[in-house]
Amino acid sequence: MTSSAPLFSRIALIGFGLIGGSIARAARAQGLAAEIVTTARSEKTRARVMELGIVDRVLDTNAEAAKDADLVILCIPVGVCGDVAREIAPHLKRGAIVSDVGSVKGAVLRDMAAYLPDSVHFIPAHPVAGTEHSGPDSGFAELFINRWCILTPPDNADAAAVEKLAAFWRAIGANVEIMTADHHDLVLAVTSHLPHLIAYTIVGTADELEDVTRSEVLKFSAGGFRDFTRIAASDPTMWRDVFLTNKDAVLEMLGAFQEDLSKLTRAIRRGDGDVLFEHFTRTRAIRRGIVSIGQDAASADFGRPHASLTKKE
Amino acid sequence: MTSSAPLFSRIALIGFGLIGGSIARAARAQGLAAEIVTTARSEKTRARVMELGIVDRVLDTNAEAAKDADLVILCIPVGVCGDVAREIAPHLKRGAIVSDVGSVKGAVLRDMAAYLPDSVHFIPAHPVAGTEHSGPDSGFAELFINRWCILTPPDNADAAAVEKLAAFWRAIGANVEIMTADHHDLVLAVTSHLPHLIAYTIVGTADELEDVTRSEVLKFSAGGFRDFTRIAASDPTMWRDVFLTNKDAVLEMLGAFQEDLSKLTRAIRRGDGDVLFEHFTRTRAIRRGIVSIGQDAASADFGRPHASLTKKE
Repeated sequence: MTSSAPLFSRIALIGFGLIGGSIARAARAQGLAAEIVTTARSEKTRARVMELGIVDRVLDTNAEAAKDADLVILCIPVGVCGDVAREIAPHLKRGAIVSDVGSVKGAVLRDMAAYLPDSVHFIPAHPVAGTEHSGPDSGFAELFINRWCILTPPDNADAAAVEKLAAFWRAIGANVEIMTADHHDLVLAVTSHLPHLIAYTIVGTADELEDVTRSEVLKFSAGGFRDFTRIAASDPTMWRDVFLTNKDAVLEMLGAFQEDLSKLTRAIRRGDGDVLFEHFTRTRAIRRGIVSIGQDAASADFGRPHASLTKKE
Repeated sequence: MTSSAPLFSRIALIGFGLIGGSIARAARAQGLAAEIVTTARSEKTRARVMELGIVDRVLDTNAEAAKDADLVILCIPVGVCGDVAREIAPHLKRGAIVSDVGSVKGAVLRDMAAYLPDSVHFIPAHPVAGTEHSGPDSGFAELFINRWCILTPPDNADAAAVEKLAAFWRAIGANVEIMTADHHDLVLAVTSHLPHLIAYTIVGTADELEDVTRSEVLKFSAGGFRDFTRIAASDPTMWRDVFLTNKDAVLEMLGAFQEDLSKLTRAIRRGDGDVLFEHFTRTRAIRRGIVSIGQDAASADFGRPHASLTKKE
């Protein structure tokens, strides 16, 4: 950063989990705010954030945190965004940008817009980034680098405010895409919500078998199963809310998935190797596409570490 | 290795893909054979293996490779193990250990035992390790470290031969477990085959949607989808054969998965957040178990690399 003024005088982060904590670390590293304040629902988290020393002030209530901020970002489960919007609405500064980071946009847009005054710019956002960890210690400044942040501004949004929020996300490493909330919810249903549902399902299935013990499932998980356990270890509250608020799109994608699974199940039952081979060849190309645009590690096994062989004496 | 004699005078690897190539590299690094020979079906692969300079000799036929070896390992898709057993049977040295690395054991045991003479020790094996890459360049000596290799010796197997093969796998870094072929096929159906089938399915589903473009699927894959693409990029021939030869166990596991998916689908449709929350909390524990026994990376995101933030000027 040169000596020019930071993008915002005060950024308020409501919630300090993986995403809120990563935004705080990245915004501070890039000098994007004169002051960063935050709050969190639990006393324990607020105390921990104070200890971490990443933000300027930790406040006790959402209202205090939002007051006088020119950028307020809700970094909380989508199911409570409406309530928090109602709580902070009377305290928002005229001209402030109010945003969020929720994985569902239609419901958040509807729930929050009902309470926010016309004097602020409400621009929902979703950084498509994360890890399986949660809590105030889980964030890191590099989380958003080369990931996409989707903005879903309402039709009447102020173009300058949208661009300012986009500039903020770009400054912490993200690429920005703009689309409608409805289209976002359909796209994310397939690239995020359905994969999580399937992973949560299969991990549960493996844990409840009669003829295979949990110890066997764990020991032989390198056969493929372990790849599913990472996203099935994601925050339960966040994901409960995602499925409750993006129900229609998730059920639609589930329908498509079930049709395709039926096709492959039938091929297995009938011993139709050609159908299987053709399908498995096609899916290989998708991974090459993801790696080639830098959305996953090119090295084998996601770049998982491998120990060295020690010669046996 | 001290100056004591190597475990085997000659190891023959039939097939030089990810697994065969990794065994060759690891066995050589550990000095486990006076000579390692190999062969591969295609002239191109044989030429490449020659260039790589990892083995002592590359032979043109399976019969020539197997001749005079005291350990022969078939590192080929399970669907062709029977044919290759028939081909090498007349050339096998008395007392040789014959093994394989296939992901299905019941079918391999049946298909190969039909041809192998009583004068050799047939001990099927399955190293539960791999990456999404295939071909002669994809192997590496560290692949088996801390992974499990399952041996499924027939009832009448010679205990000393079983122990010698176990010692070989331990020397290249693996832990060894012994079980029946039938139990293996059930365990792997859940820890490997079902995960691959589900991953292959969902990646195919995402690629065929009308309302979401392939470009969108790739760009926003960091929301969870990309975790599935790694195993859906696995070798199509190998996996076709797995599903054709372990049909019953795979269909049984699919049935259990479908019941669980129905339960979660119903909870989403009815808006039953408690069922979802309880399920998502339980699955979190499975990942902790896998990490705690060293079967996956403890760091977030499988330890995927993250670029650094560069300060904007």
